[in-house]
Amino acid sequence: MSDGRGGRHTTKVDLPVFTVEPWCVREPELRLDRLAQSESVFALSNGHMGLRGNLDEGDPHGLPGSYLNSFYELRPLPHAEAGYGYPESGQTVINVTNGKLIRLLVDDEPFDVRYGRLDSHERILDMRAGTLTRQVEWTSPAGRSVRVTSVRLVSLTQRAIAAICYDVEPVDHSVRVVAQSELVANESLPDLGRDPRTAAVLESPLVSEEHVTNHTKAVLVHRTRHSGLRMAAAMDHHIEGPDHMATDIESYPDVARLTVATRLEPGQRLRIVKYLAYGWSSRRSRPTLHDQVVAALAAARHTGWDGLLEEQRAYLDDFWSGADVEVDGDAEVQQAVRFGLFHILQAGARAERRMIPAKGLTGPGYDGHTFWDTETFVLPVLTYTHPSSAADTLRWRHMTLGLARERAHQLGLAGAAFPWRTIRGQECSGYWPAGTAAFHINADIADAVVRYVDATGDEEFEREAGLELLVETARLWRGLGHHDVEGVFRIDGVTGPDEYSSIADNNVYTNLMARRNLREAAAMAMRHPDLAERLGVSTEEAASWRDAAAAMMIPYDERLGVHPQSEGFTNHARWDFAATKPEHYPLLLNYPYFDLYRKQVVKQADLVLAMHMCGEAFTYEQKVRNFDYYEALTVRDSSLSAQTQAVIAAEVGQLDLAHDYLGETALMDLHDLNRNTRDGLHIASMAGAWSGLVAGFGGMRAADGVLRFAPRLPGGISRLAFSMRYRGNRLKVTVTGESACYELLEGEGLRLFHYDQEFELADKPVEMDVPHVPSSPRPSQPVGREPAPRRVDPHGHGRDRNHRAFQQPRTSHAR
Amino acid sequence: MSDGRGGRHTTKVDLPVFTVEPWCVREPELRLDRLAQSESVFALSNGHMGLRGNLDEGDPHGLPGSYLNSFYELRPLPHAEAGYGYPESGQTVINVTNGKLIRLLVDDEPFDVRYGRLDSHERILDMRAGTLTRQVEWTSPAGRSVRVTSVRLVSLTQRAIAAICYDVEPVDHSVRVVAQSELVANESLPDLGRDPRTAAVLESPLVSEEHVTNHTKAVLVHRTRHSGLRMAAAMDHHIEGPDHMATDIESYPDVARLTVATRLEPGQRLRIVKYLAYGWSSRRSRPTLHDQVVAALAAARHTGWDGLLEEQRAYLDDFWSGADVEVDGDAEVQQAVRFGLFHILQAGARAERRMIPAKGLTGPGYDGHTFWDTETFVLPVLTYTHPSSAADTLRWRHMTLGLARERAHQLGLAGAAFPWRTIRGQECSGYWPAGTAAFHINADIADAVVRYVDATGDEEFEREAGLELLVETARLWRGLGHHDVEGVFRIDGVTGPDEYSSIADNNVYTNLMARRNLREAAAMAMRHPDLAERLGVSTEEAASWRDAAAAMMIPYDERLGVHPQSEGFTNHARWDFAATKPEHYPLLLNYPYFDLYRKQVVKQADLVLAMHMCGEAFTYEQKVRNFDYYEALTVRDSSLSAQTQAVIAAEVGQLDLAHDYLGETALMDLHDLNRNTRDGLHIASMAGAWSGLVAGFGGMRAADGVLRFAPRLPGGISRLAFSMRYRGNRLKVTVTGESACYELLEGEGLRLFHYDQEFELADKPVEMDVPHVPSSPRPSQPVGREPAPRRVDPHGHGRDRNHRAFQQPRTSHAR
Repeated sequence: MSDGRGGRHTTKVDLPVFTVEPWCVREPELRLDRLAQSESVFALSNGHMGLRGNLDEGDPHGLPGSYLNSFYELRPLPHAEAGYGYPESGQTVINVTNGKLIRLLVDDEPFDVRYGRLDSHERILDMRAGTLTRQVEWTSPAGRSVRVTSVRLVSLTQRAIAAICYDVEPVDHSVRVVAQSELVANESLPDLGRDPRTAAVLESPLVSEEHVTNHTKAVLVHRTRHSGLRMAAAMDHHIEGPDHMATDIESYPDVARLTVATRLEPGQRLRIVKYLAYGWSSRRSRPTLHDQVVAALAAARHTGWDGLLEEQRAYLDDFWSGADVEVDGDAEVQQAVRFGLFHILQAGARAERRMIPAKGLTGPGYDGHTFWDTETFVLPVLTYTHPSSAADTLRWRHMTLGLARERAHQLGLAGAAFPWRTIRGQECSGYWPAGTAAFHINADIADAVVRYVDATGDEEFEREAGLELLVETARLWRGLGHHDVEGVFRIDGVTGPDEYSSIADNNVYTNLMARRNLREAAAMAMRHPDLAERLGVSTEEAASWRDAAAAMMIPYDERLGVHPQSEGFTNHARWDFAATKPEHYPLLLNYPYFDLYRKQVVKQADLVLAMHMCGEAFTYEQKVRNFDYYEALTVRDSSLSAQTQAVIAAEVGQLDLAHDYLGETALMDLHDLNRNTRDGLHIASMAGAWSGLVAGFGGMRAADGVLRFAPRLPGGISRLAFSMRYRGNRLKVTVTGESACYELLEGEGLRLFHYDQEFELADKPVEMDVPHVPSSPRPSQPVGREPAPRRVDPHGHGRDRNHRAFQQPRTSHAR
Repeated sequence: MSDGRGGRHTTKVDLPVFTVEPWCVREPELRLDRLAQSESVFALSNGHMGLRGNLDEGDPHGLPGSYLNSFYELRPLPHAEAGYGYPESGQTVINVTNGKLIRLLVDDEPFDVRYGRLDSHERILDMRAGTLTRQVEWTSPAGRSVRVTSVRLVSLTQRAIAAICYDVEPVDHSVRVVAQSELVANESLPDLGRDPRTAAVLESPLVSEEHVTNHTKAVLVHRTRHSGLRMAAAMDHHIEGPDHMATDIESYPDVARLTVATRLEPGQRLRIVKYLAYGWSSRRSRPTLHDQVVAALAAARHTGWDGLLEEQRAYLDDFWSGADVEVDGDAEVQQAVRFGLFHILQAGARAERRMIPAKGLTGPGYDGHTFWDTETFVLPVLTYTHPSSAADTLRWRHMTLGLARERAHQLGLAGAAFPWRTIRGQECSGYWPAGTAAFHINADIADAVVRYVDATGDEEFEREAGLELLVETARLWRGLGHHDVEGVFRIDGVTGPDEYSSIADNNVYTNLMARRNLREAAAMAMRHPDLAERLGVSTEEAASWRDAAAAMMIPYDERLGVHPQSEGFTNHARWDFAATKPEHYPLLLNYPYFDLYRKQVVKQADLVLAMHMCGEAFTYEQKVRNFDYYEALTVRDSSLSAQTQAVIAAEVGQLDLAHDYLGETALMDLHDLNRNTRDGLHIASMAGAWSGLVAGFGGMRAADGVLRFAPRLPGGISRLAFSMRYRGNRLKVTVTGESACYELLEGEGLRLFHYDQEFELADKPVEMDVPHVPSSPRPSQPVGREPAPRRVDPHGHGRDRNHRAFQQPRTSHAR
């Protein structure tokens, strides 16, 4: 594994890679220095499979990548000193058979953008069409020019299917072309890391079981060595071109290849439509899996290329109708919020009871694991825009409940303890103080259940998965905490969201979230007494949950008038920010944990996240003071932080600051702010663009069947409009500086709050005044860690500060 | 590395292996089932080299072992998730060239105790002679009987030298014998652990550089692959026997062999005196090292076998005259305290500016590392019995000060941060919450300096090493702590002695020891202003140490009337001892750290250790209440704990309980209580036998030039007498139930305290009354964790409970 300290690019780094357009991400010229970043940005996925935006011809590449959700290999997790309950084996996503490859020979020269002359090269990700289009004009070293156009999609409607429409035309002279469309397993990868055992596992992870061809079709079946998984990749082709074409197909254990050779005169075109199907299973036999992908191919061929394009656009139209966010005044954020929503949909759409990894299926970062990010930052977006995907993810958690129960048992705890990081449900964290000890993930999952049920009223889900998830996590909390001699319920020795503190007592975020978990479990059990009884929940047990919740300790520092993040936090020494050089961020790469843990320095919103997630537990004045206090301590060494700071900054009236944080979370990948987009996109950070706009400037909060808005816009945004779904309704909120308009697009209507004002939204739009937000002094951040301003300010701090570069490590605790 | 869960022996396990004798440890019959334990018990060492008590003929063996102090190899320290400041390479002791081997062929049969008939087999460790004697009568499968006697010593007077006197005689019939005396490098070892990289490092760690023979002499020179160390082992022989003997000598890269063949008639004897010399260096050339061991051999031959025996006894006579402890009434403890003193001397006598490992040079346990044990538990014994060895060890620490400064700098701290575990001075701990965070080791080293200077008045040491050690550790504390808003000096986020808590704020032991460190540094700097100036200590800096010391936070729980071990400790849930099964101890092998850390459960004396080391900080009533409180929480999963509990139990009047703990610490290895004596002896635990008797029942405390006693005996000990050295005096204290007699054996006399009574001790012995200790209720321990009683009590709990077996893991935090 890389330690994340990869060299910084020094060429062209400050020029934008992509144009700013509302519905597209366009790379107008090929940036070889940013190839790995653009491969992540241009990744296509449907949640089941993911294809990085590698060039069709394979070379050059930043990081070749094709992934199947939950298809992984085991690798050893070594420990210098072993400990009880440490996982000794980890799961790591592997690069599966690459079906994207279409190589081209022009006369005698392989088409390779690094040789000859690249006359033009444009790639466009179209977020309404759901396609990646590439248009190239290239002149070979021998002087022959061709025009290549490829359009790629990963189908949102046909889960197993991807397709590529690949066109070659001569520009002026006749050319002899040979196209080779391939499936390649066990591609060699750059940088397999320092541990020779891990490198050995990942170097050639797939063992061939079958390779066959038939006309234009080929199938490769492989299995993993250790994890016992089997996968099949298949391709079929539709070929159009001149009359005289020679085609040939061949296969080997790790390669299948269709070769088309022909001569193209000017005006002629060779078109290859390549259909790809992928499947995997831990249980199905080789013939079954083989037949499954071949059947998927048959269906796709039947639909045809144009049919796939149409289905794709229709699926996306439906999505955008309940999810789009319009931002006037900040074109970058406008593009970024759609880019984020598009990738969130891609990560979740067809995951179907598999997890959503921190990087989606866009890269191998974090070993392809899922974390609390998904429930805390990604699912809120899906819950209100594409709720079935939120349900699917939570049903996946429910499927892993057995493993979580086993883990709790292993740890000597009741109920279920979900893993800090995993692919299939087993704990894969190698550092327990920022893994196992971060028990809040269990409350985060419970909270996502509560939110989903609140937003949909999906009683089937509640009965099939929701209640059991709440019950088992409530049991965990009940056993994890204890009543002290004064009857206060304490949760000691856990790690909250801020990973620059660890193993602390009574973390406010954790305790508040646990309180909700306990209360909601008791309430849901009461709604379903039959089911509760089947789960063994006695009335006494539910009462003990309510009691623990009521007695929950929420520490408060009367002296300072703020909540300590955890008990005793405000007694600790403050980090010496003045003495910390800019190049020493992120701190965890330059300072030991022990020093970070024992001082007041915050990696990512923790108490501030509590104020977003559990706003009801704080007065407005507490929010203002707490926000101010923690702003001065928060360094945002995690990409998860800015969005929460955006939401609370908006709530406490710091609208420009909120806008700055919004920019940071939204542009994380398009601007490669952390210089690690190469390893995959920051799905949760991109979700923050939506949260910053909808929960921040829209002031959206929902709980207990009540949907509230408190809209307010910063100076840099003149209009904000967003659609969302709630309880069968689709509504649209449009905010300007003075007013907010609420409109029902679909559904039977609902009651809403605009600030404290309750009203009924039905057929007729409702317009409300937006109150004036009084200005107050801007809180200060640690020196050098201020967010880049969205608007050039009078003191001359320009937009370029948004490119502040820092290196991110690839550990669980540095997202 | 073994995980310490090795199978338990089920045969004969409860029969004593050794007889109980005052000056010997005798194994009257060979116990193959306890071979590895007896190899540790019978290990001979002088601090420079150590030879396990392996049988002369090599086979069978438990664990072959020959060690040179600080001769190590590097091994990778893998981390599942890397972190700043984690050591990536560790040091591990290696088994060097084995010179103990003398194989024997009797007619055609190799002498092997597992074949033929073992008519008698006795081994005796003589603690006054400093020899290991073995007497065997064996009949070969073919019916030929021989008597073999070997006497082995590792010279305390000639540091590089060991010697073996090996005799063979026929019992009744004439026999043809062939003796092969060997040096063997790269012996194959059982169980090299699970990490293939570590096993690769340790499998054949020595690379041959030279092998030569000359008459009866042979030399092998080797170097390590990674650590860059070179060693030489040499042997020479004196042979006596019948006239017709054929001798031959040969050498190969990893073997040198002298062969003696002869026929012995009844009454004839073959005697081989084998002289062994060892040397190593990181800097000296091959020829220099070669010459060094050959020269050492020449000196030893000149001294001769009888001369070596005489020197050995004289050295030990001198030691015992200032160190012996006599115990009437408990023969096991009598033997054990001498056994412990003997091995402590062996560990430290000729270490000479090298470290004293936790296992001495008796086995490979803990990778051969030294820990805080040495300064905290072993050096107090040496300081008052063999002070030059204490000085040597501290001078070794001083030699590593550069590395400790580098480590502090790496951690962002001032001064010096000594390693938690090491061989040569580099941090080798793979788990920072119980490694780096245990900063108390720095105060422990400082305390050992203060104690040594107090006990000897060695001003040369003070100026050459002592002051700089105090200054650099004081600087560490000054930077590690901070004044809070109320002016209290806090030390947050550190780990105290109890490894079932971690990363806590204001650990009482740590804060009290740091306070002493700061104060003593300031005081010593004031005594040596010239030197202080050279070390850059300004008067302001010294003042800031005094100020921090004066403002040091010592948390106290007014509600319970006890000191919390660390801030907040007494708020935590108590461990559920009733639900913890006996086989679930030690807890760290069966429960996760997070659960241990957040509950009230104590692995080893921590607050109770503070009451021993810093008794002046507690009132008597506090000591009584604290002891009672922590007794109920302390499970003694560390072998370091019982001795401290013995000392404080004695101080608070729990004399029988003190006696029970004394038994546990004293018999750790002779009874193999933790079932891991195979990996080497528990040097610190054995030091506890001395502490339990002298500091416990003798009530000895010394500070600021004042030596105090408060003697009191438990019912099971009728008389206790001990000699010790203090400020150039050698004195003897003899205690009975009623009185104590103080006697000056050597020196100019000194003032003493007997309880509160001050008196002058000069030529004439002084007799004092011992006050009656009122009985009070015995504190209770966690259920099942009561110490085994030294005397059979009326409720029928017998001695056999001393054999309570538990498995110990080989991590830093389970000694």
